[in-house]
Amino acid sequence: MTEQHHPHLTLGVCDYPEHVPRDRWEIYAQQQKELGLTYVRIAEFAWALMEPTEGEYNWTWLDEAVEVLHREGLKVVLCTPTATPPAWLIRKHPEILAWDAQGKVRAFGSRRHYDFASEVYREHSRRITRAMAERYGQHPGVAGWQTDNEFGCHDTTRSYGPASQAAFPMWLQSRYESIDQLNEAWGNVFWSQTYSGFDQIGLPNLTVTEPNPSHVLDYCRFASDMIRTFQEEQVSILRECSPGRFITHNFMIFFSDFDHYEVSKCLDFVSWDAYPTGMLEFFASWESDEVKQKYARTGHPDLISFNHDLYRGLKAYQGGHPLPFWVMEQQCGQVNWAPYNPLPADGAVKLWTAQAWAHGADTVSYFRWRAATMAQEVMHSGLLRHDETPDRGFDEVKALSLSDFPAGDVPAQVALLHDYESLWIWDQQKHNQDLSYWRQVMLYYSTLRSLGVDVDVVHPSSDLSKYALIVAPALTLMTEETMEALRKATEHALLIFGPRTAYRTASGRTPETGQFGTLADLVGGKLRNFDSLRPGLREKVDQYDVTLWAEGYQCEDATPVHVYESGPLAGVCAVMRKGNVLTIGAHSPGLVYDLLREALAEARVSVLDVPEGIRVSRRSGKMLVQNFNAYGVDVLGTRMPAVSVEMLP
Amino acid sequence: MTEQHHPHLTLGVCDYPEHVPRDRWEIYAQQQKELGLTYVRIAEFAWALMEPTEGEYNWTWLDEAVEVLHREGLKVVLCTPTATPPAWLIRKHPEILAWDAQGKVRAFGSRRHYDFASEVYREHSRRITRAMAERYGQHPGVAGWQTDNEFGCHDTTRSYGPASQAAFPMWLQSRYESIDQLNEAWGNVFWSQTYSGFDQIGLPNLTVTEPNPSHVLDYCRFASDMIRTFQEEQVSILRECSPGRFITHNFMIFFSDFDHYEVSKCLDFVSWDAYPTGMLEFFASWESDEVKQKYARTGHPDLISFNHDLYRGLKAYQGGHPLPFWVMEQQCGQVNWAPYNPLPADGAVKLWTAQAWAHGADTVSYFRWRAATMAQEVMHSGLLRHDETPDRGFDEVKALSLSDFPAGDVPAQVALLHDYESLWIWDQQKHNQDLSYWRQVMLYYSTLRSLGVDVDVVHPSSDLSKYALIVAPALTLMTEETMEALRKATEHALLIFGPRTAYRTASGRTPETGQFGTLADLVGGKLRNFDSLRPGLREKVDQYDVTLWAEGYQCEDATPVHVYESGPLAGVCAVMRKGNVLTIGAHSPGLVYDLLREALAEARVSVLDVPEGIRVSRRSGKMLVQNFNAYGVDVLGTRMPAVSVEMLP
Amino acid sequence: MTEQHHPHLTLGVCDYPEHVPRDRWEIYAQQQKELGLTYVRIAEFAWALMEPTEGEYNWTWLDEAVEVLHREGLKVVLCTPTATPPAWLIRKHPEILAWDAQGKVRAFGSRRHYDFASEVYREHSRRITRAMAERYGQHPGVAGWQTDNEFGCHDTTRSYGPASQAAFPMWLQSRYESIDQLNEAWGNVFWSQTYSGFDQIGLPNLTVTEPNPSHVLDYCRFASDMIRTFQEEQVSILRECSPGRFITHNFMIFFSDFDHYEVSKCLDFVSWDAYPTGMLEFFASWESDEVKQKYARTGHPDLISFNHDLYRGLKAYQGGHPLPFWVMEQQCGQVNWAPYNPLPADGAVKLWTAQAWAHGADTVSYFRWRAATMAQEVMHSGLLRHDETPDRGFDEVKALSLSDFPAGDVPAQVALLHDYESLWIWDQQKHNQDLSYWRQVMLYYSTLRSLGVDVDVVHPSSDLSKYALIVAPALTLMTEETMEALRKATEHALLIFGPRTAYRTASGRTPETGQFGTLADLVGGKLRNFDSLRPGLREKVDQYDVTLWAEGYQCEDATPVHVYESGPLAGVCAVMRKGNVLTIGAHSPGLVYDLLREALAEARVSVLDVPEGIRVSRRSGKMLVQNFNAYGVDVLGTRMPAVSVEMLP
Repeated sequence: MTEQHHPHLTLGVCDYPEHVPRDRWEIYAQQQKELGLTYVRIAEFAWALMEPTEGEYNWTWLDEAVEVLHREGLKVVLCTPTATPPAWLIRKHPEILAWDAQGKVRAFGSRRHYDFASEVYREHSRRITRAMAERYGQHPGVAGWQTDNEFGCHDTTRSYGPASQAAFPMWLQSRYESIDQLNEAWGNVFWSQTYSGFDQIGLPNLTVTEPNPSHVLDYCRFASDMIRTFQEEQVSILRECSPGRFITHNFMIFFSDFDHYEVSKCLDFVSWDAYPTGMLEFFASWESDEVKQKYARTGHPDLISFNHDLYRGLKAYQGGHPLPFWVMEQQCGQVNWAPYNPLPADGAVKLWTAQAWAHGADTVSYFRWRAATMAQEVMHSGLLRHDETPDRGFDEVKALSLSDFPAGDVPAQVALLHDYESLWIWDQQKHNQDLSYWRQVMLYYSTLRSLGVDVDVVHPSSDLSKYALIVAPALTLMTEETMEALRKATEHALLIFGPRTAYRTASGRTPETGQFGTLADLVGGKLRNFDSLRPGLREKVDQYDVTLWAEGYQCEDATPVHVYESGPLAGVCAVMRKGNVLTIGAHSPGLVYDLLREALAEARVSVLDVPEGIRVSRRSGKMLVQNFNAYGVDVLGTRMPAVSVEMLP
Repeated sequence: MTEQHHPHLTLGVCDYPEHVPRDRWEIYAQQQKELGLTYVRIAEFAWALMEPTEGEYNWTWLDEAVEVLHREGLKVVLCTPTATPPAWLIRKHPEILAWDAQGKVRAFGSRRHYDFASEVYREHSRRITRAMAERYGQHPGVAGWQTDNEFGCHDTTRSYGPASQAAFPMWLQSRYESIDQLNEAWGNVFWSQTYSGFDQIGLPNLTVTEPNPSHVLDYCRFASDMIRTFQEEQVSILRECSPGRFITHNFMIFFSDFDHYEVSKCLDFVSWDAYPTGMLEFFASWESDEVKQKYARTGHPDLISFNHDLYRGLKAYQGGHPLPFWVMEQQCGQVNWAPYNPLPADGAVKLWTAQAWAHGADTVSYFRWRAATMAQEVMHSGLLRHDETPDRGFDEVKALSLSDFPAGDVPAQVALLHDYESLWIWDQQKHNQDLSYWRQVMLYYSTLRSLGVDVDVVHPSSDLSKYALIVAPALTLMTEETMEALRKATEHALLIFGPRTAYRTASGRTPETGQFGTLADLVGGKLRNFDSLRPGLREKVDQYDVTLWAEGYQCEDATPVHVYESGPLAGVCAVMRKGNVLTIGAHSPGLVYDLLREALAEARVSVLDVPEGIRVSRRSGKMLVQNFNAYGVDVLGTRMPAVSVEMLP
Repeated sequence: MTEQHHPHLTLGVCDYPEHVPRDRWEIYAQQQKELGLTYVRIAEFAWALMEPTEGEYNWTWLDEAVEVLHREGLKVVLCTPTATPPAWLIRKHPEILAWDAQGKVRAFGSRRHYDFASEVYREHSRRITRAMAERYGQHPGVAGWQTDNEFGCHDTTRSYGPASQAAFPMWLQSRYESIDQLNEAWGNVFWSQTYSGFDQIGLPNLTVTEPNPSHVLDYCRFASDMIRTFQEEQVSILRECSPGRFITHNFMIFFSDFDHYEVSKCLDFVSWDAYPTGMLEFFASWESDEVKQKYARTGHPDLISFNHDLYRGLKAYQGGHPLPFWVMEQQCGQVNWAPYNPLPADGAVKLWTAQAWAHGADTVSYFRWRAATMAQEVMHSGLLRHDETPDRGFDEVKALSLSDFPAGDVPAQVALLHDYESLWIWDQQKHNQDLSYWRQVMLYYSTLRSLGVDVDVVHPSSDLSKYALIVAPALTLMTEETMEALRKATEHALLIFGPRTAYRTASGRTPETGQFGTLADLVGGKLRNFDSLRPGLREKVDQYDVTLWAEGYQCEDATPVHVYESGPLAGVCAVMRKGNVLTIGAHSPGLVYDLLREALAEARVSVLDVPEGIRVSRRSGKMLVQNFNAYGVDVLGTRMPAVSVEMLP
């Protein structure tokens, strides 16, 4: 659970006192208090102000900033400022800088300009963290900490420069012990890639054609590990110097480059930064222009709630359960970083806040207090405009009645299994450039949500015992551990697999016995062929259209449920069932809808048919109905205006 | 005014005697004279021929070339050859080469391979300029000079290599004096960007995510200044050694990377290179395929005339008036550098020549005499074909009656304000990737032209006293000087602002009081919100469709003229009026058309409704009607054939 | 002719024994024999296994692999492993690596990571070739050799690093002798590009704008020459050590970066790697989405057969005739390297095999035996699945009756002339970005094939005496030799030229007398203008639509056959005829169809009208009818099922 012990949703805001004149601080604190906020996150990015030259700290401003908020009864969330090493540090140690995949140094001048593997940077990261922690760790106004900011933002997880190049072979050596084992794991006999020493191994960029996927997979693991240990170093210092305060990190939307399960382990709870309109324009590359237009002013309901459900489930890794989380940065106006940045609809800020609560958020903290009048974010909105007048979002926050949003559980009976290693190997070799891992996952997630079902998005290693239905749309990398968990889960739950399940081993190879490897007995069959459908190509499974992907199975002791009726797989099984395991090989929205609906009935999970653009979510015994449409809708016996929420018991 | 004292339009041609055998020179000169040409521009790019090895000049060929033309009674325009430093110079001083924004050296092998900030290159530029000027400066055949060629072509304004890196901090130091003032101006408190010394400041490329817009803005100013001083060095030498000869430079179409107002100050008059078909295909990225197809063989009338009007107004900077100019290179056949290079329509060369005159050109000089039989331009046409037969354009030039095009003024009563600093800051942070500065400007310009109105495109610092209507579609960067000029202009003229007006201060920040900063009292209101509309999204202002951009205002003492009727800004003012100032926040072609039409009536500027593809332009008491359509049109009581001009009194 | 002395088609397979456990080798060999295969190609890429550390060879595994196959009566084709220098070699000599056109080193980690110009690599290439040749050159089981693998794959023909930079000036010096001759040939007077020494000449990449096309042309020749001599070194060693064995190389589809005629000279016969579905998705950028969808599961019939005809004609260079060839790698399932990789249709493998035979293949060797369970190709299919069960293609191969496909000649009466130098210069300056050399060639080729005509694709220097009709769609670079060959050919054959014929001289300039230079007397006319039509723009020649390109001629003693009826060329000749030479300036599928049909009648070449998706091909007195449609068709009196072949006498 998160730090708070509130009976209901609390609110916060991200503020940057250093961006405004000193005479505004008290006024802002009063306004924040009056608005009903509990938390104010400050000091993010402020390293150059804390330490203008090496080793000479200037705490005066921050002492005052913390004090002003504390005096007003607001709780302070402090950030380690490591997302922005100052100019003097970079000039002294340019080797801190990361290199992009094209071999170019990523220069100072914005943010996140560091390589997680840099020993030099790690030392400075620990140093500034300790300095802050020692000064503020026990301040009564400080409620908790955020480490750094948005790990991985701007493709910064992976660096291709000397620091990572030096660390990677050592990481491999500790993973594989002998070079022969690495050669075997990666299948380096292929294309004469055999290494005779760890020191021969480079980073997998700038190769003549695609690099070995096992090489890339381990590089992904390595880069993820660098973030994990980078953060652990900070957390360890904060725990030492700031007892009783929470530690979190603000993750970002669909970021895919590191294993969020591993990276979040050392945190007290998880936060994420929710930007619904930017998310739709910028991240959801698979969505059509029609969808992007329909939801341009609200974001797509399922893209938002998927992330809530993902981050709620993040710390369920290794036998745990989903937990409340924070939205550390909640969009409350327009963003500035997508190709198009429309204004949110009237009601969107309330809708997003309520939706966040319904999916398990304990705190929603808006970004940002006042719109910045300088630098990169002058076109990003805040609760206040540049001229300090309350902006549109401010009024929606003000109108919230927080007691309407009591603390409590999200009663999901359905789990959707997600795993970053599967994502890495899937997207490396998509075989159909239009079908990414996320698109495949979102087909199943969105279908469940359109049926009014609450979903926990969790890692296969979570406690799966409470679920009646478990959906694994894209578990393509299959470890022994996951197999074990899945076998166990089928004892009590219905289990649904999507295509490519267990197509890859832990090292990124294909099982010698083909798909599904040693999972074949569980699913009751084997792969015959997969088929990658170009745009315009569609095949049939009964009356259903199949697009993008078609996988055909040889049933051993499974029963064929559906069979292809056209194309090279005509007559071959598209969907098979053995015991509690249903395997769906065809990418077919209609078929998936009907199969999930049947499965929910079988698993005795209630289904609620909701119209397009309507979603329902349950928490603490209440049901929140959400209308994401730009028009009013009659639903569940009530008339909902455009872009609104309704709480039902 | 330009060098000429002719009572009417004169013609010229760009020729390269060094590209053909010596025995063609006299023949060509005779043909040029017979064709009615007055000027021949030569010696462009010919450095390696003038100075085959360092310090050893070979003037023989050029002596003869100048002499042959002079003997025939043709006036010679000589070019400094600095757009193409020779191979030996680059081998000796590779540090002359520019670097692109990706950090790659831009190699020898084409043209414009130099960094304007290179001290080494500057020395050689002065040296070759002086050598030429001393030899030909007082030759009776030499009428004037062109500096270099097409500054900025191929994205060469900005270099990201050591020469610019060395010069930029010094330039900043002289602009800001103290690093604290720079930090404040740029808002470097944001993202910990504070510098503790000028030497810490890099060029704004290869940053992890977008660099600070103020950093970029100053880098744009710096790079522009490098061109200004580079040219001033040449001009100073030419003035010393070649008294009585004009000095000009051939600017290019919509080039945006340097401040043409600043760079043209030291010239006698301005020239530009008009390539109507290439311009449409290559530069006008916002035009639809339908428009590109319709005008594929003539170019778009407004894109061409906008550039005429822009270059006519270039030297009106700082209290001056628009002036006659030259078209130094006029397309007279097909070009070779656009994705598609269609043949111009029959009549296009006459149409372009007449249009250039009508918009203030004193001289039109065709590019080029004979099509090149070698190297990069073998697929570019000239007045003569490869085989020396007259090409299609030749015949159209021959048929011109120059006395039909008398010298005189363009009687524009409407000014359109343009400013490169606004362009730089607008396009850096478009917020809607489809709405560039030029697209915004062209909406207003094209609307005025469709109403038969003559327009001066000028900098806000020009003398605005003669205009009845002043249109400022995109003045987003607002200086104290410009504000003063605008205030003064409203005393006698109607003033129309487009969206984003005064959104940025001189250093690229946003006013602390929000848009419009201290201009708020003039416009009578303040910004409430701007809205960036993705493709497909459209809102309403009365019956008008709004696309791309919608800006809503809080009227203080302005009167709301139009109000949004849909979307998040429903009920908010879209167009407001205070006194002589009308501010239009919505991107709406229909609304803009009606508002400009009303404003013209109010300002007593005559409107002439012309059909699609027809334009009228006035000069010297005559009106030139231009038909850019590929079909005949009945207009103004006369039947105009496809692609033709008609002179009316 | 190829190595085999079989009376009919033989089959083979590409296998990688080192990819599977030792205990599978005998089993696979038996299965291969039972399937009716004759050849097994092995040892490709296996350098690191042959020589795990420098100079220490490990032949044990390969000795056994050869022996196992030999014992089973299979003939072994061995590969030199030079496409994949091992890690230890690259670590020791990183200077072997090529650089891409952007100036980045192309790293170890996939394949083809070497610069053909590297003297260091050449030495190692000769060393490993000699080691293999000495060990296996006279083994009774070894039938022949493949050099390296797919020269040029992944854009590896041209390197922009130090090795090529060092070799290129020397190559130029030996071609031109004096720098003045080079300057003249390249037209370096243009843009001051004159060099005063060979050592000043760089590689033509990273120039500010497009480099001199003559510079690029010679660089293309140089890079092609590097491949030629690289291979000749291997071939010379193999000839010495492995007498009586054939030597071939597996070329790839439309690869364009080197002169296949020159590179294939030293081979016994030519092979190529046929991947019909990948070819369509990946290489045929000019094909519409409709076409890509229609043929997604079979590939496009003409794209496949064009390559068969191209490679059959490859060794006809310099006075020879087309010859049988091998398909060294024949797709037999899905590939993994295109954006979309659909399953082939039922029947496709049989169709491709039969089509290959009909176009002159003596041997078709499938890629690969068992699908790889590791590394980059895990999603590529083989004859066996990952789990060793026979995949779909296996069954089709098994059902083949090889005696149905007798050895013999392809009786083509029509030659299509092709030349890599024309391709290089055409594609460098397309002038219309949508009209590449291959697209232009394929218009003529496909038209002929739709008329049921067999075509030899040959270099102009081949023996043209046997052809009744010779089509030269895109011979834009015209040498004296080619002109001579064409003149001679018109004595007995009808000759058809496409646009841009003879527009460029051997050094890449344009003739001083314009197009067609000294060929003008043969065609009977001269160019007036060419016109590049943007999408949507179309003109008329009689009732025919013209798109993309229109070239108008001034007839001298030719007769105008067709005249443009619209556009700037209205009234100008579009098609002219003089004696046996017909010149077609317009890109017009309808016009080309009618003109080719008439020409075939005149040349007394039989025409056979075939429906869409049907093709006929003749060999050894038989006619193979091919149905590439996904539906059955009644044709030539027989009912053909979807995706099938029918042999007619």
